[in-house]
Amino acid sequence: MNSNQLVNEKFVCVALNDAKQLNELNGTFSDKPYVKPPTQPVLYFKTRNTWSSDDAQVSYVGDSMVVGASIALVIGKTCCRVSETDALDYVSGLTLTHDFSLPEQSYYRPDIKGKCLDGSAPIAQNPVPLSDIASLADLTVTTSVNGEEKSVLSVSQFHRSIEQLIHLISTIMTLNVGDVIAVGFPGDRIAVQVGDNVSSSMSGLQQLNNTLTGE
Amino acid sequence: MNSNQLVNEKFVCVALNDAKQLNELNGTFSDKPYVKPPTQPVLYFKTRNTWSSDDAQVSYVGDSMVVGASIALVIGKTCCRVSETDALDYVSGLTLTHDFSLPEQSYYRPDIKGKCLDGSAPIAQNPVPLSDIASLADLTVTTSVNGEEKSVLSVSQFHRSIEQLIHLISTIMTLNVGDVIAVGFPGDRIAVQVGDNVSSSMSGLQQLNNTLTGE
Repeated sequence: MNSNQLVNEKFVCVALNDAKQLNELNGTFSDKPYVKPPTQPVLYFKTRNTWSSDDAQVSYVGDSMVVGASIALVIGKTCCRVSETDALDYVSGLTLTHDFSLPEQSYYRPDIKGKCLDGSAPIAQNPVPLSDIASLADLTVTTSVNGEEKSVLSVSQFHRSIEQLIHLISTIMTLNVGDVIAVGFPGDRIAVQVGDNVSSSMSGLQQLNNTLTGE
Repeated sequence: MNSNQLVNEKFVCVALNDAKQLNELNGTFSDKPYVKPPTQPVLYFKTRNTWSSDDAQVSYVGDSMVVGASIALVIGKTCCRVSETDALDYVSGLTLTHDFSLPEQSYYRPDIKGKCLDGSAPIAQNPVPLSDIASLADLTVTTSVNGEEKSVLSVSQFHRSIEQLIHLISTIMTLNVGDVIAVGFPGDRIAVQVGDNVSSSMSGLQQLNNTLTGE
């Protein structure tokens, strides 16, 4: 199942980095227990049992599943507490990931049951070298289901920039060669069904395709 | 830093498995947003950058740190959705882990900042084979700081048994050879200082010693 050859240590995902979604949730975050919006990136992990690759079939589990696509940074050099200015020196390339999960009921608990399904994190295996990307801020991830466009999110719509995220996450924990960071998913996850084909594109530079199969 | 030779995939920790602590928190959990206590195990991960071993020095970070000790199950055979009855067939041995972390402010967010500190999860490297343990329920973990006993927790005081946890966690995600599960920490974490020696014993069958150093 784990045909992934790319990630070899941690796969960290950043939640709530779509500025529009965060803005819409601000009302919720003013209630107890939070009282205010998050001050640090909200992170979750996709564990090794979730790692998969391009063209992998993903098992449909439960009664409903959703998917989101994100740019995935590949760490090329060990980094700890790097500045925003130096952050990109530690990135070897960019690729795409699909995060298949159970729909989230609330933001009040680490949703390990919904996020750590076997094979639920395909990652395109040939990252685009950073040197081939003219402008990070102009990158856009487009996701289609069965050929119909369902979501579009640009890096310019992120609440925190890629450089800020590397700075903040590398302050929390050392990032090693082969770690991957999914930097931002569209706020609205896409509902999927058995048999659906999910395909994403990162500004035409990278593609990722997966199909959902019954168990 | 990572001198760990034991864990090779996931290191899953079970929070809130001290029945006494859970009972004391029940009042809190009846408030919003939870309304009721957790119905599934509350899990968190110690990522690869945290893995360390016996006698390792642990870096003291921030203004205050706490430690808890737990029995750590080592998975010996891949398992997915196993029953409680069969659960122990998939465990090759038991060892000890120390979870050093920042004190927890609330239970309302995945506390990755506090839990994923570099080198914060030493694990004793020679597990005790399951066949050498007469009764799991009688195992007790005792933790001392600078020779003074600070906490004692027996498996019999767990909210969920080891067998129940393997059943429930393997239903959420496939467990692979070399995965480790920390099955239960005492509800009260122990405050530690630079220079402290933390030592734990699992019913005299296994020991783990670590010292805290300044950065």
